[in-house]
Amino acid sequence: MSTLWHPDRASGSPEVLGDGPLPPGLWEAFLAYDRALLGNDVPALDAAFAPGDATLRADQTGVLLGHATIAAFRAARPAAPDRRLVRVHVRLPADGVALLVAEVASPAGAPGLQTQLWRLVGGRWRIAAAHVTAPARPLDTSVWRVVGAPLVAPAAPGPLDGLGVAVKDLFAVAGQPVGAGVPAFLAGRAPETRHASAVAALLDAGASLVGIAQTDELAYSVSGVGGRWGTPAHPSAPGRVPGGSTNGPAVAVARGEAAVGLGTDTAGSIRVPGSYLGLWGLRTSTGLVDTAGLLPLAPSFDAVGWLTSDGATLLRVAEALLPDAPQRDGWPRALVTVPALNARAEPEIAEAVRGAAGALGAVALDLDGDCDAWFEAFRVVQGFEAWRTHGAWVTGHPGALSGEVAARMAWAAGVTGAQHEAARATLAEAAAFLRAALADRVLLLPATATPAPPLADPEALAAARDRTLPLTCLASLAGLPALTMPAPATGPGHPPFGLGLVGPAGHDLPLLRFALGAAATLAGPRPHHAQRPTEIA
Amino acid sequence: MSTLWHPDRASGSPEVLGDGPLPPGLWEAFLAYDRALLGNDVPALDAAFAPGDATLRADQTGVLLGHATIAAFRAARPAAPDRRLVRVHVRLPADGVALLVAEVASPAGAPGLQTQLWRLVGGRWRIAAAHVTAPARPLDTSVWRVVGAPLVAPAAPGPLDGLGVAVKDLFAVAGQPVGAGVPAFLAGRAPETRHASAVAALLDAGASLVGIAQTDELAYSVSGVGGRWGTPAHPSAPGRVPGGSTNGPAVAVARGEAAVGLGTDTAGSIRVPGSYLGLWGLRTSTGLVDTAGLLPLAPSFDAVGWLTSDGATLLRVAEALLPDAPQRDGWPRALVTVPALNARAEPEIAEAVRGAAGALGAVALDLDGDCDAWFEAFRVVQGFEAWRTHGAWVTGHPGALSGEVAARMAWAAGVTGAQHEAARATLAEAAAFLRAALADRVLLLPATATPAPPLADPEALAAARDRTLPLTCLASLAGLPALTMPAPATGPGHPPFGLGLVGPAGHDLPLLRFALGAAATLAGPRPHHAQRPTEIA
Repeated sequence: MSTLWHPDRASGSPEVLGDGPLPPGLWEAFLAYDRALLGNDVPALDAAFAPGDATLRADQTGVLLGHATIAAFRAARPAAPDRRLVRVHVRLPADGVALLVAEVASPAGAPGLQTQLWRLVGGRWRIAAAHVTAPARPLDTSVWRVVGAPLVAPAAPGPLDGLGVAVKDLFAVAGQPVGAGVPAFLAGRAPETRHASAVAALLDAGASLVGIAQTDELAYSVSGVGGRWGTPAHPSAPGRVPGGSTNGPAVAVARGEAAVGLGTDTAGSIRVPGSYLGLWGLRTSTGLVDTAGLLPLAPSFDAVGWLTSDGATLLRVAEALLPDAPQRDGWPRALVTVPALNARAEPEIAEAVRGAAGALGAVALDLDGDCDAWFEAFRVVQGFEAWRTHGAWVTGHPGALSGEVAARMAWAAGVTGAQHEAARATLAEAAAFLRAALADRVLLLPATATPAPPLADPEALAAARDRTLPLTCLASLAGLPALTMPAPATGPGHPPFGLGLVGPAGHDLPLLRFALGAAATLAGPRPHHAQRPTEIA
Repeated sequence: MSTLWHPDRASGSPEVLGDGPLPPGLWEAFLAYDRALLGNDVPALDAAFAPGDATLRADQTGVLLGHATIAAFRAARPAAPDRRLVRVHVRLPADGVALLVAEVASPAGAPGLQTQLWRLVGGRWRIAAAHVTAPARPLDTSVWRVVGAPLVAPAAPGPLDGLGVAVKDLFAVAGQPVGAGVPAFLAGRAPETRHASAVAALLDAGASLVGIAQTDELAYSVSGVGGRWGTPAHPSAPGRVPGGSTNGPAVAVARGEAAVGLGTDTAGSIRVPGSYLGLWGLRTSTGLVDTAGLLPLAPSFDAVGWLTSDGATLLRVAEALLPDAPQRDGWPRALVTVPALNARAEPEIAEAVRGAAGALGAVALDLDGDCDAWFEAFRVVQGFEAWRTHGAWVTGHPGALSGEVAARMAWAAGVTGAQHEAARATLAEAAAFLRAALADRVLLLPATATPAPPLADPEALAAARDRTLPLTCLASLAGLPALTMPAPATGPGHPPFGLGLVGPAGHDLPLLRFALGAAATLAGPRPHHAQRPTEIA
């Protein structure tokens, strides 16, 4: 039935296979769209899509609904990867309606597909819906640097049998160099001769390694906006950042490509992607998990932890790898929430924390501290240590880091010894204050101040960071265990965010068990009249 | 604009977002199709697709055109991987026409997409076109076992700078165990401590390793029908086998995921996938490339070689890695072709070889040997050696191999010493005869007797093997270099196949240079009257 023609055989244009003659203007509109795609001509791309909320563009990373959403996506991303049209199949199911299925190929010959529903709108052919399958790569290098089936098999059977782990590219994996999210750093590293302790512990407990996953450069960011390796797509909120610096393991878990993400959290690098992606994530008490074989950032604060898609798996991992803390009846003495901290978050997040506080019977605590001053001191000490850790390498490799992290390192280079000493004194006081104020209670707070900000909006990115880090750095500066768990869904299409819990040092397992109970309570039938938190002195 | 409803909220059915009420029967047809997909109800699937040649089903591995082709594909493959519907977007561009874009998720939460154009045909909704993006896996384990970016960096800059290599999972890669296409074999291997010679040579010449790619089990097959790892999809001829046993590297090259495939060829394991996939592939003279660090199959015949998508890249690799042979003016003395060998191939392949012979001025040679007896002797010696290599392991791991290879190993176990001795004597005569008959001439023959057979047809698979191996084993038994290069295209949609060339032992580089010249001649304007090969004594 199909007829075959080459509209312009001489120019190397694609084969066209169809079931009838093309209606006027359709082929020209298709080719114009294709040129605009390769040339990243955003106005032409916007014009090619039909106006209105029903227009749709989908690929594996998500579905964009509405012309405005699609236009924002276009404006934010670089040009489509180079590829050529190989063959176009045309189907004409009705007047003014055409389905085009285009086979494309990357320069290396990898095949891809683009399906478009075109409609004649006001005399012009426009795309009403598009489904894109990009040419295959053996690996999504925005998420993974190395993957195997498995990359490393379990060392022995154990309680983590069957779980696959995505290892942040800061931990030694025998046979592989550490890359730390920076290609130039990777190029200078020899393969490791033994696994990092945190890696070996997982393998000894029965887990396997799926692979080594990306990190923000040197782990010195919480945005997840990759440098040279690219930014992993947010699996459930297209166009938003995944959060970092444990971005690779977090996205791998969110996509179902690994059951466990092994990461680090210095200022929030597990909790931020966990919150943005709707995962469970635990930053352990500083020093509780051996950091041998871990590339440091700021050793005073660096802590190991894990990300999972559900609380039960996180508990399984934590029970296998953490020492149990003495558990007392009636622990925690109380769940507390701090209105001043909640108020730092977006209203919808603050409201979710208040709702959870009510449902869980939290009491309000007036935590009388200057979070902004603490955070300022935290970033000074973090910067000082980061420069001590990486300064020589950074100096010797100009241009190796990309924008945000390069600028932060340049700032860190200028932190003086005196500034560092003063900030360290502030932090010591803050830590003592926080530990005393919380005592053996658990703090409920926003895991992040905002949901994942849009990748395309640098100001929103910076603002999200500036609002979130004063919250996440509290546990970091006091060395406390902290976790994020997904807040109950706020509605279809709304990006996820997390509820944060912080507990006493060394009480990581009790904290996690408490969180599982809290999650069960929150998922159950809500009370009709949520109790307001009561003030305590 | 979009309205939202849940047709059956209680049952966990997907969200549906549309721009108007659904026409009668569409949703029921969609759900029935989805059930049939998960239940692998082939008759129901066939009924869901519209009849006729214009019906289309596409995924990343290719486009299937026509109801009959799609039905054959369904019948051949197992059930679709388990996944659930998350959200379905409905667009109704005209009466009797609907576009459904379904967001799906794997059990682990990995997202996928299915777009379908439905048409009302004779009062029933049927699928006229479908585009499927399967939920992402971090790795296509039918092609790759381990992948990195890179897995191993070059050891030094060199002539192969910028080329990425897919290494057949028989070669030692430091830090990784050898898997040989058999999970149970992999499970018992320790990581290698150093690279195989052929791997090190590539790294020393500037190439990087993309990863370790799959092989037929223990390399004892030429079908490419994977065992436990699955069968890689043929990138340009959906539903056909890729050929093996170097199937992973070959498909990686065909997909553009690696520039070079490093493989082995015992009886045809480079030439067969090269021919089936339209690649260039060189089996080197036996013993010319060091096999240290290579897991053997039948050491008398095992030879190293490479696959590439073009002749220039293959020459670049061969010039970097092979010793140059003394090149004499006027070499080869002649190109010869053997009508009796050509006649063993499918008519279209025999015709292509005859056409090439004419264009290249080949002379016909009446090679008076009993290929079938030679092949029988070859398989006896190969089986004897394969059992000597792997018999103890196979005996100790019942059930570890799948159908075809398990059966072949069971047969090999029964080859007696006397049979082996007799066969070896036959082969020695055959090798001497062939070397003398060819002398310093080059033989042009079909690279394989058939194009890639359909995966779904075991009889066609066995027949393809039985017809091809008597051709490919000629170079193997005589230890000669042999290559496949793509035959000129025979028409759109026709599966590719290769022209084979065999040269004198050690003349690998001159043979390859000759092949590049021949390819240029064949690609140029064809003579109007192709010269018939002339008989020579």
